[in-house]
Amino acid sequence: MIRTIRVLLIGLGNLGRRFCDLLVEKEPYIEARYGLRLLLVGAADSRGLAYDPHGLDPARVSAIKQAGGTVADYPKAGQARSAVELITRAEADLLCEASPVNLRQGAEPGLTHIRTALRRGMHVVTPNKGPLVLAYQELHALAAEQGVQLRFDGTVAGGLPALYIGQRDLRGAVVRRIEAVPNLVTGYILELLADGLPWEEAVERARSEGVLEADPSFDLDGWDAAAKLIILVNAVMDLPVRLEDVERTGITGVSGAEVLAARREGQVYKLVTTAERRADGGVNLRVAPTPLPADHFLAHLGRKQMGVVYHTDIYGTVMAAIDEPTPLPSAATMLRDIMDIFCCQEPANSNK
Amino acid sequence: MIRTIRVLLIGLGNLGRRFCDLLVEKEPYIEARYGLRLLLVGAADSRGLAYDPHGLDPARVSAIKQAGGTVADYPKAGQARSAVELITRAEADLLCEASPVNLRQGAEPGLTHIRTALRRGMHVVTPNKGPLVLAYQELHALAAEQGVQLRFDGTVAGGLPALYIGQRDLRGAVVRRIEAVPNLVTGYILELLADGLPWEEAVERARSEGVLEADPSFDLDGWDAAAKLIILVNAVMDLPVRLEDVERTGITGVSGAEVLAARREGQVYKLVTTAERRADGGVNLRVAPTPLPADHFLAHLGRKQMGVVYHTDIYGTVMAAIDEPTPLPSAATMLRDIMDIFCCQEPANSNK
Repeated sequence: MIRTIRVLLIGLGNLGRRFCDLLVEKEPYIEARYGLRLLLVGAADSRGLAYDPHGLDPARVSAIKQAGGTVADYPKAGQARSAVELITRAEADLLCEASPVNLRQGAEPGLTHIRTALRRGMHVVTPNKGPLVLAYQELHALAAEQGVQLRFDGTVAGGLPALYIGQRDLRGAVVRRIEAVPNLVTGYILELLADGLPWEEAVERARSEGVLEADPSFDLDGWDAAAKLIILVNAVMDLPVRLEDVERTGITGVSGAEVLAARREGQVYKLVTTAERRADGGVNLRVAPTPLPADHFLAHLGRKQMGVVYHTDIYGTVMAAIDEPTPLPSAATMLRDIMDIFCCQEPANSNK
Repeated sequence: MIRTIRVLLIGLGNLGRRFCDLLVEKEPYIEARYGLRLLLVGAADSRGLAYDPHGLDPARVSAIKQAGGTVADYPKAGQARSAVELITRAEADLLCEASPVNLRQGAEPGLTHIRTALRRGMHVVTPNKGPLVLAYQELHALAAEQGVQLRFDGTVAGGLPALYIGQRDLRGAVVRRIEAVPNLVTGYILELLADGLPWEEAVERARSEGVLEADPSFDLDGWDAAAKLIILVNAVMDLPVRLEDVERTGITGVSGAEVLAARREGQVYKLVTTAERRADGGVNLRVAPTPLPADHFLAHLGRKQMGVVYHTDIYGTVMAAIDEPTPLPSAATMLRDIMDIFCCQEPANSNK
């Protein structure tokens, strides 16, 4: 018996378009293996939307976006209306919210999209950090109230299932300390500095390779890393921490001499995020360029690798890392989240 | 509202006794945080059992074992009877099967314990490899038939949640290749060889530190690693492979010269288990001492560390490792499994 899940997708950039390609590629496998049919009934970008209760063709959506167009041009189903209209009127089970993140503008429009979907009783899946950083507690309360699921696996370290490990595999433990290297851009630049490049050359090389945004301060000043730390700590340590709680230092002040000296001693500079529980029940949150000793779990992460370390009382120290050469794994986190919502084992009764 | 889970524990050695200590230490936390009360109603060792429907005191069980006694001496509740009797007659919800593993003797008595418990409609949780290696498919079919859960997180790499990651976080992906370094003993001896110790000295040091069993061939000949690989492949790749399918080479033939030469080139020898899908739908299974390049995810595992790497099509390459200085994390996998059975999110309906 096949269950059909009606999906809305907001955001058809880097991640959204790849997600459409995944829907095409994985459709037969997901149906055969999991008995699920993921039906894309609506999609929206910055210029419009398309809606068809019988299902859009994700291959067509992807092709329109590849050609530089807008989904408002989707034959018959396209309209020049806002994404909010789509979420407000569509009949759907789940929203994938993949808009570009914008912490500085109150995480909008993503935050409104998510609230609207939750209020309409839709599950929400998102790799979009902004709403989770600014409104973690509120969104979870709203989802619980509505009896729907909110998942955000792609928000903390690309395609690495850091949240699933932290929330599911450490039950019963006290997580005393979390360390992560969650940002690829800063890792790359620190590596170039360790190779001896001067700062300006390292930044220019990253820019020319398309690795840097037009305004790179979000990454270089450690905002991206801090945002990811906030989500991690809310989710895994269950502490309602906020961005302003983070003692944040980016990599712009790192001197080439320091990095080279560390390398000579077998140490590796990484932009490390740390959450450490205090005896008073609080937590110290820090983002800073840090020389890691060679035996540190995160010291050997390569150019396209991110990692997280959980220090626990009863499960030892558990570490996970990912190598993601393209943005595909980050897009695929939406699929992982959808699968988890609909495939998870039922909790057992204690008395059968 | 507190749910009570009545637990039987077979095996009060290394892992079983630590599990009793965990029940004591974590009781308030598990009740407050998860609304669960884990009530130990029965326990058995090689010399007898104890049973009390109102609950044994796990602290008392642990103390008896620490003092070298048998649980048959537990005041009032103890009896000089077999574990099978306990499983057959007790009223319980779940069996923790922590008997010593014995692949050579048909994985008994653990296998019979697990079958008996499943047939009586009990969930089963076990860190015991034997039964899963010899009867993976049969036990899963039996559990499904009875509508109960079978969990074995501790069987493949100590306290590392390798199976949860492989079975849950990679849904939708094709896992093309798995690599693991799942055995601590061989890692230690290879490290000593890389430090320049001759084979006999390395083995003697491991023995004097209590790291080797009386008959160390299970570890040194790669049987432990092969068994863990079989379970991993059955669980994560969904292939019904058997121990005899593994091309197995232990570490006894490794020459010190080879290991030292590798070290000079920045490579690290590990006993690596590999599963690689073939184009014909089959899989190549191998256990062998392998020189790993310095940039391999598993190359830097320390003396008390194990790891696994999943190469996937859509989630990149996902790696996880654990540092476990004592056997506690391995014992704690039974707690992780119990939490997962009773705390998991319900799967969502597609039409609400």
